Amino acid sequence: MAVYTHLSAEDLAALIAQYDVGELVSAKGIAEGVSNSNWILETTGQDGNGARFILTMYERRIDLAELPFFLDLLDHLSSHGLPVPHTIHDRHGASWRMFDQDKAVALIEYLPGVSVDRPTPQQAHAVGASLAQMHIAALEFGETREDKLNVLHNLTALQSCREELAHIDPRLPEMIERGQRICRDWPTSLPETIIHSDLFPDNVLMLGETVTGLIDFYFASNGAMAYDLAVTHAAWCFDRDGSKFHADVGDALMQGYQSVRALEPRENAAMPILAQAACLRFVASRAQDWIDTPPDAHVTRKDPMDFVRRWDVYAEMGDRLFA
Amino acid sequence: MAVYTHLSAEDLAALIAQYDVGELVSAKGIAEGVSNSNWILETTGQDGNGARFILTMYERRIDLAELPFFLDLLDHLSSHGLPVPHTIHDRHGASWRMFDQDKAVALIEYLPGVSVDRPTPQQAHAVGASLAQMHIAALEFGETREDKLNVLHNLTALQSCREELAHIDPRLPEMIERGQRICRDWPTSLPETIIHSDLFPDNVLMLGETVTGLIDFYFASNGAMAYDLAVTHAAWCFDRDGSKFHADVGDALMQGYQSVRALEPRENAAMPILAQAACLRFVASRAQDWIDTPPDAHVTRKDPMDFVRRWDVYAEMGDRLFA
Repeated sequence: MAVYTHLSAEDLAALIAQYDVGELVSAKGIAEGVSNSNWILETTGQDGNGARFILTMYERRIDLAELPFFLDLLDHLSSHGLPVPHTIHDRHGASWRMFDQDKAVALIEYLPGVSVDRPTPQQAHAVGASLAQMHIAALEFGETREDKLNVLHNLTALQSCREELAHIDPRLPEMIERGQRICRDWPTSLPETIIHSDLFPDNVLMLGETVTGLIDFYFASNGAMAYDLAVTHAAWCFDRDGSKFHADVGDALMQGYQSVRALEPRENAAMPILAQAACLRFVASRAQDWIDTPPDAHVTRKDPMDFVRRWDVYAEMGDRLFA
Repeated sequence: MAVYTHLSAEDLAALIAQYDVGELVSAKGIAEGVSNSNWILETTGQDGNGARFILTMYERRIDLAELPFFLDLLDHLSSHGLPVPHTIHDRHGASWRMFDQDKAVALIEYLPGVSVDRPTPQQAHAVGASLAQMHIAALEFGETREDKLNVLHNLTALQSCREELAHIDPRLPEMIERGQRICRDWPTSLPETIIHSDLFPDNVLMLGETVTGLIDFYFASNGAMAYDLAVTHAAWCFDRDGSKFHADVGDALMQGYQSVRALEPRENAAMPILAQAACLRFVASRAQDWIDTPPDAHVTRKDPMDFVRRWDVYAEMGDRLFA
């Protein structure tokens, strides 16, 4: 969470001049995003009454060929009434442009709201409903993106760390076998759409019990709707470290989703394994990051065990949780 | 430059409720400050028309007993018409309060403007004039704070790194002798006030050629006005790495300052040594940081040589520069 590139007043003014948004008034680098840098920009606005935007600079991890998919998706969902930030197009009509020849930037709508840490059932209900609305709206989106973080990829990623896993925690190596069972029993032909894939509380802006923003779609891809719901369940219904499961929040999330889109019986039946697959994904990615990050790197490493604890809950109680 | 503490929506709402500023609308951690964390907060405002603030959390390096000095200084300068952010007092009239029992926070006015990288002479003129206005307004400030980063402290700090200096750059050890000469010839009884001591371009907000904000007063202390001007000269009139001196910017800064407050002859005469003392300070602090920061710490270390190059200019040309 940092700003990786220094943008001077001179840089920003030149950039803003490419958009019909008035003159630059203020710019602050914000501490969000891991693969991109972000600034809050304030301008005089088209009407002189002031306007705010998020400027995103894509620093790494993103394939520029995929940028139109992500930005078009924002515009598609926004135009379908979702609280998703739309892009501001430049004077040539483009939703992104190059800065300094080597980095892509996009100017994006600024949405109100803050991220909650300890969601209430009411808030989880609202998030579930928004996710279902997003799934339905995304059915009409004309572009596709392969799910690169599918279950087989995640299992392979975890297996690639096999030697080091026990050094992180003695229980981690068992997760490989668990992951193999998930791959073996993987449900096919679930209803698909474009899924967010990373709808943690950090990526939802709320005011009270209202969802005011769904953000950070850079993991979005084609995928099973129920898997996206399972990721969201794992992200919202536990204490951060996975030590406590909040059944009331989980129930509210499921009810909120189904208040907009009823799950099919095969989706309901698949939820326990999908939720475990969600845990596999974050155990694998966190184990890799843990191994890649030196302990003295001044960066907080996220503990893969946070999602082993969740996985235990889904493995033991999944059938009852999603009954 | 980071946000060191996570503040949830729940934390922020509870905090904002202590102030008469309306309801929380948005909060973004911003990538500014090294010894504190900062957020841009947006609220509905007292009148419902929206308002923005900077929330600062004091993380380290600051002695809480000194916080009233810094915050009272902001209020004093702001009330004297300087573009300095004033503090927002809480419902009990306090300019700061404790959060979670162990960290002080203050809510501070949000000012427009952006920091320039390559100041023009016109911009430097405006900054010089603002600095002089600040010096005059600060004469009436009733509180005092000892200058802990005085020239003797800085020389001692550099000497404490004696063993390691040559490993950073072969020229660095000579700077100890240079520093000793500065201490020996140090001018006394220059006019004093409360000085900013760190008025780099990062700490000045501008819109075009107008200064809209002087910020980050956490190095402010009693001190010689001309020394503050010398620090500002070293900060504004060179390329970032000190490789190029911009005489036109330097002349404009001096003229801008003197358009508000004429330097006394003894101040004029002292400028070359004061400018070298400014370089000593940043050479010493950067050398210490360099030694304290492991090369693989994912943190950009600032090169002390940036200020050795400036020091060379002042040592060789100082008498002519400030004639």
